[in-house]
Amino acid sequence: MRLYTIEINGKETVAAEGKDGSMYPLDSFGVHVRDMNELIGVWERKKERIEAGLREASGVAVRQGDFKILAPVPVPMQDIVCLGVNYREHIEETADVLDFTKKTDTVYFSKRVNRCTAPGGLIPFYDFVDSLDYEVELGVILKRDAYRVKASEAEKYIFGYTIINDVSARNIQLKHQQWYLGKSLDGYTPMGPCIVTADELFDVHALAISCTVNGEIRQKSNTKYLITSVEEVIEELTEGMTLKAGTIIATGTPGGVAMRMKPPMFLKPGDVVGCEITGIGRLENTVG
Amino acid sequence: MRLYTIEINGKETVAAEGKDGSMYPLDSFGVHVRDMNELIGVWERKKERIEAGLREASGVAVRQGDFKILAPVPVPMQDIVCLGVNYREHIEETADVLDFTKKTDTVYFSKRVNRCTAPGGLIPFYDFVDSLDYEVELGVILKRDAYRVKASEAEKYIFGYTIINDVSARNIQLKHQQWYLGKSLDGYTPMGPCIVTADELFDVHALAISCTVNGEIRQKSNTKYLITSVEEVIEELTEGMTLKAGTIIATGTPGGVAMRMKPPMFLKPGDVVGCEITGIGRLENTVG
Repeated sequence: MRLYTIEINGKETVAAEGKDGSMYPLDSFGVHVRDMNELIGVWERKKERIEAGLREASGVAVRQGDFKILAPVPVPMQDIVCLGVNYREHIEETADVLDFTKKTDTVYFSKRVNRCTAPGGLIPFYDFVDSLDYEVELGVILKRDAYRVKASEAEKYIFGYTIINDVSARNIQLKHQQWYLGKSLDGYTPMGPCIVTADELFDVHALAISCTVNGEIRQKSNTKYLITSVEEVIEELTEGMTLKAGTIIATGTPGGVAMRMKPPMFLKPGDVVGCEITGIGRLENTVG
Repeated sequence: MRLYTIEINGKETVAAEGKDGSMYPLDSFGVHVRDMNELIGVWERKKERIEAGLREASGVAVRQGDFKILAPVPVPMQDIVCLGVNYREHIEETADVLDFTKKTDTVYFSKRVNRCTAPGGLIPFYDFVDSLDYEVELGVILKRDAYRVKASEAEKYIFGYTIINDVSARNIQLKHQQWYLGKSLDGYTPMGPCIVTADELFDVHALAISCTVNGEIRQKSNTKYLITSVEEVIEELTEGMTLKAGTIIATGTPGGVAMRMKPPMFLKPGDVVGCEITGIGRLENTVG
C-alpha cells in the first residue's frame, strides 16, 4: 500500500493511493486517525479495512488539485536515527584497493526534525551555510517497539519505506565534529512522497536510488550496495536501545555528494534536487 | 521553585516543594497538568497560582513515604541535545600549555531517551558494554520555542535546571565514531531529583558540580568553567534550528570521567554513582 499525508483545505489527513492513482482519505473507509503516527499504532488492526476499501474502491477519492502532498510523517515522534557511510561505492572499480568483504563499523548519529519538508517544499538556504549538500537515503519506519530484535525477525517490525533527503550543512557539520547540528537545521529533512508499506516491496535491497541536481545525476546506486542491511541495522541498534513504534531510520547515502566532488558543487538558491528510489517514487525540492 | 515528578499509588503527578520540604501535587493548587511537558506549556499562565499556593501552604501535601521521586521529565519530547567537552579543566594548572582565551568549537550531539532513569533507579549493566562511564552535567530545560535567540535574550527562554548523568558505553561510543548510540542505550539517562526554575538560581554559572563513585570523588568542578555558557549555547543552536519548548540540553561534563583515568576505572555492577550540583541537589543511581 502507498500511504500519504495530504492537506485538504488546510487540514492534514492520512490517505491511501488506489490502483488507478486516486487518493482516498482513510476517513472515507471509516478509519479515523489524527496522523500517520497514530495510524502506525493501530495499523495491524486497521490494515484489512483499508485494503478492502481500496480493493472495492468503496471510499470517496479526493480530486486531483484539491489536495497537497505533505511529508508522510510531518512530525516524527523522535529524532531520526541516521547512518553514515553505508554504501559500497563503485564496488568493481575499487575492489583492488578496498576490501569490501571486511565489514566496517556502522556510523550512527541522529537528526532533529521539528517538521519534515514536504515534497515540492523549499530547502532553506541560510547565509551562514557555505556548503549545502544533498544525501538521498532510504527511510525505514517501524511499526512496533523493537528491543533485542534479531535480523532474521526484523522484517516483522517494519511498517514501510520512504525517501529522505538528509540535507547537510557541511561547514556546520565539520565545525562541531559530531554531525548532529549541521544536519538538524530547520527544513533540512525533506521526506516523501509516500510510505510504501513493507509488504508492497518485494526486495528492499534491490532498489535503484539516485539524486539529481537540476536534472544532472549526482548520486546513482542501488540498495543492494548497502554495507549494513536494514535488518542488520535494526539488530545492532536494538541490542541495548528500544526503538519505539514510529521510529524513522535513514539508512545512509551512496557516493556522489557535493562535498566529495572536485571541485565541490554545493547547492545554491534555485537548485532543484530530485531524490528517487524505485518503487517508492520521487522527492523533489527546490533550494531557496 | 523546585518542581518534581512523583509517583503516588502508581500514578505520576507533578509536584512543587514547599519551603519546609513538603511535597504538594499541583492538583492541590487547582493546577491540573498531565505531566511536566504540559506544565512547561502553560507555565507562564499557571506559575503565580502555584507560587501563591506554596506561599500560603493552601494545598494538601503528600506524606513522606507515600510517594516516589521520578525523573522530573520522565519522557522528554525529543532527543536530548548534548555538548561534548565544555569545561576548562584545572585551568590554573594547564594555563601554560593550553590557551583558554581561544574559544574552541562546541561539540554537539544527541542522546535518545525513551524514559529517563529516576533518582535511585538502576543504571543497566549490559554484558556487551565493557567500559561503562558516568558524566555529571547541568541540564537546561526550555519553556518557549527558541529560534535566532541572542545570548543576551536567552534567559527568557529557560524554564529551569536539573542534573543529568550522561551515562556512556565507551566501547559502543567509539566503535561507531559518532557518539549517539553509545549514549542512547535504555536507562542511560538518569535525571533529577528536580527542576529548579530559572528564577530560583541566582547565577547558573557559579555552581559546584561533582560526581562520586561509591563515595570517592571522580569529577569536581564548577559551572563557572563552562567554555560555552548556557546562553551562548542557546544562541549557537538556534541560529538555524528551532528548539521547541520542552527541549532539554545537557551542557557537557567536567574532567574526571573513568575513561581518562590511568588506569580507567569503569563502572561495575553495584557501584553507586552520585551526581551533585549546588542548589539543585543530588542524583544517586546504582549500577545493576
